[in-house]
Amino acid sequence: MMIMRKLFHERLDQLAAQLDDMVVLVEKAMRDATTALFAADPAVAESVITGHGDVRARQAAVDETALELLAREQPVAGDLRTIVACLRMSTDLRRMGKLAVHVAEIARDRDPATPVPAPLWETARSMSDRALALVAQAVAAGDAASAALLEHDDDQVDQLQQELYRRLLAGTPGVAVEVAVELALIGRYYERYADHAVDLGRGVAYLTGGNALDATVGTV
Amino acid sequence: MMIMRKLFHERLDQLAAQLDDMVVLVEKAMRDATTALFAADPAVAESVITGHGDVRARQAAVDETALELLAREQPVAGDLRTIVACLRMSTDLRRMGKLAVHVAEIARDRDPATPVPAPLWETARSMSDRALALVAQAVAAGDAASAALLEHDDDQVDQLQQELYRRLLAGTPGVAVEVAVELALIGRYYERYADHAVDLGRGVAYLTGGNALDATVGTV
Repeated sequence: MMIMRKLFHERLDQLAAQLDDMVVLVEKAMRDATTALFAADPAVAESVITGHGDVRARQAAVDETALELLAREQPVAGDLRTIVACLRMSTDLRRMGKLAVHVAEIARDRDPATPVPAPLWETARSMSDRALALVAQAVAAGDAASAALLEHDDDQVDQLQQELYRRLLAGTPGVAVEVAVELALIGRYYERYADHAVDLGRGVAYLTGGNALDATVGTV
Repeated sequence: MMIMRKLFHERLDQLAAQLDDMVVLVEKAMRDATTALFAADPAVAESVITGHGDVRARQAAVDETALELLAREQPVAGDLRTIVACLRMSTDLRRMGKLAVHVAEIARDRDPATPVPAPLWETARSMSDRALALVAQAVAAGDAASAALLEHDDDQVDQLQQELYRRLLAGTPGVAVEVAVELALIGRYYERYADHAVDLGRGVAYLTGGNALDATVGTV
């Protein structure tokens, strides 16, 4: 029985390692998409778009491992919730990868002669920087303090998004309709990316011994 | 043992009934948000926004039932995948409810004197009608033909979104920047709502005996 437990925990470690690989891949995708957007580099944008198949394949692999563990090991209590948390985290990570694709699509298709307009650059750049930083914070979220910081920084992303919208809606001089539409969507993509990073952080906090998931996965 | 199985299947029926209730609630939320948007009715919009707490509470209840079933009944094979499918469907439904809130927020905050502009009304209205209809189709998706139709109609939503974007980017006369930004976001919300409806349909197809989930939840 002890050996079975040991094997089970080795499989759980494998699941965690698969998630770590997804985090690296997805973080790089959004970082590259952001570079492509601000440096107007369509080749980098294209690589993010074509790379998404790998993210999807890795999510399928995580889900397969998780389902297999649920079926074969019949875990209860903490182990059960750990596996369900991993299933949720793989879904968050795939969505984050898809949001990177959406940013990359705008970066690829936009006219390189029309970069992000100067009056909005600072806000858009602060927003993307902050959203990107959240993933590293999410992975490090092992205690209540880190989790609280994560929520705080996500609020800052939301505020930057609201500032971007206010400026767009106020009709910033020199910003054409098509640029305003692109920037509104970009703002939305980074906001959602940050939201998923917070969800990811809650999962990490749970896996590393916190209780942050209790409210969302019931009381079993 | 037969009695245990019977009880287990009663709990599964309960889970399905909880999901049905969520579908009714979420579909009404998006229908009301759409009415609020096109009829410029801020009171209806407000009711959608305040009603979202109920959607969240119901998702928590679905998840609790699902986790309890996983822990107590130790299901394998089909039963296991059914429960995991229900967990995914509850997440889809909560997100759909949140998208209705986003549409309602725009409907509440926009100037009632500036309705959806006439040249874009038809496209926006076709898109929202189609997206709303997808949920009923998703719930009915019990066979391969319905599932294929669902994908086809979701493609139409995507095409309408692209048409809306093209018109916005071409600078439709009489459409101010702030209206263009709002419509771009609204287009994105309905597109995501439709995507989640397709995911929901895949879940329903699986629960009613199809195999559509095989590709996404592994081969256990």
